[in-house]
Amino acid sequence: MTLIEKPAETNIYLNDLIARRYSPRAFDPNKSIEHDKLLSILEAARWAASSSNLQPWRFIVAPKENETEFNKILSVIKEGNIPWAKNAGVLMIGVINKYRRPDVLNRHASHDLGAAIGQMVLQALEHDIYVRQMGGFFPDKAREVYNIPEEFEAYTAIAFGYKTSDLSHLTDAHREREMAQRERQPMESFVFNGDWEQTADFLK
Amino acid sequence: MTLIEKPAETNIYLNDLIARRYSPRAFDPNKSIEHDKLLSILEAARWAASSSNLQPWRFIVAPKENETEFNKILSVIKEGNIPWAKNAGVLMIGVINKYRRPDVLNRHASHDLGAAIGQMVLQALEHDIYVRQMGGFFPDKAREVYNIPEEFEAYTAIAFGYKTSDLSHLTDAHREREMAQRERQPMESFVFNGDWEQTADFLK
Repeated sequence: MTLIEKPAETNIYLNDLIARRYSPRAFDPNKSIEHDKLLSILEAARWAASSSNLQPWRFIVAPKENETEFNKILSVIKEGNIPWAKNAGVLMIGVINKYRRPDVLNRHASHDLGAAIGQMVLQALEHDIYVRQMGGFFPDKAREVYNIPEEFEAYTAIAFGYKTSDLSHLTDAHREREMAQRERQPMESFVFNGDWEQTADFLK
Repeated sequence: MTLIEKPAETNIYLNDLIARRYSPRAFDPNKSIEHDKLLSILEAARWAASSSNLQPWRFIVAPKENETEFNKILSVIKEGNIPWAKNAGVLMIGVINKYRRPDVLNRHASHDLGAAIGQMVLQALEHDIYVRQMGGFFPDKAREVYNIPEEFEAYTAIAFGYKTSDLSHLTDAHREREMAQRERQPMESFVFNGDWEQTADFLK
């Protein structure tokens, strides 16, 4: 069997990494992520843009070889994600610093975390490593397990791994999703000018 | 004079686009962004990942040739950013849908906007187009000018343009920043495992 590929269906030019990126659940349970590739992925986050260069991101990172830490992250992930997340090569929790300075919230913290993870995801893909993020985890439990202080917030759980063509470990519903086409709203529905929900004139 | 380049200073492997990305202010006032490249940039956002594939992003987009729309976006940008933002080829406002469904907030909306813009920025750079984002704009004024409904929120202003080596239109402070090195915290300060602020063991 061959690996599933889901290049973006478009006639518009896209960078190869951006076109090929998607969020699989079929991670190869037998493949670890090499140390140098993990560093490269984290370095990609490090150089992301952020508001006032505050770099509000923190990452709790567990390669699968570190069973204690890997299981600790699994323990804060919601049950429905465990069957596939446990096959990842690396699990992470993305955390934000909510403040610009004491008593002043950083309105852009989660946006900047998203940008940093976006760079990680494309850097990972260049190494043939795919990423699936999860909203389905317990931020409060993460706070407890890792002693995350009040001014920080666990925001997203992230699984990194090599893909496998063996979909047998997925639930039926997840197997179906794994093979489904990627779908997006047309550009006309989210690119405006002139007024709200008025499709930009240059798209007409 | 040659264009400033600021490749990330690192010994770790980085994708060329990720390494070269930075946020200049020295945009060439005489260069427009070609239609096909603008589409490519927007298409990169379109294919970003989002929580439950909700695609919570909206973009208000003004190429400089559309003077009315371009000036409308300039009118919601804070004064300190105008001297350089007015030289951009395209200005945008990034907006989020705050809700997953009526009465249920989407905790991940701004994170997902950040990821989508992250893809735009790298796609733009592949076309030699650079990006600088601004927190310095007036979300409430944008709401008024564009009739943005209550359930949406203007989150970031974005300038896209080709660079210029002519820094004469920048303020002294901005000119200095334009030539400064990019700086980032060391990985040890934001990559943890075991416990909060405990540097990940694989970095030691």
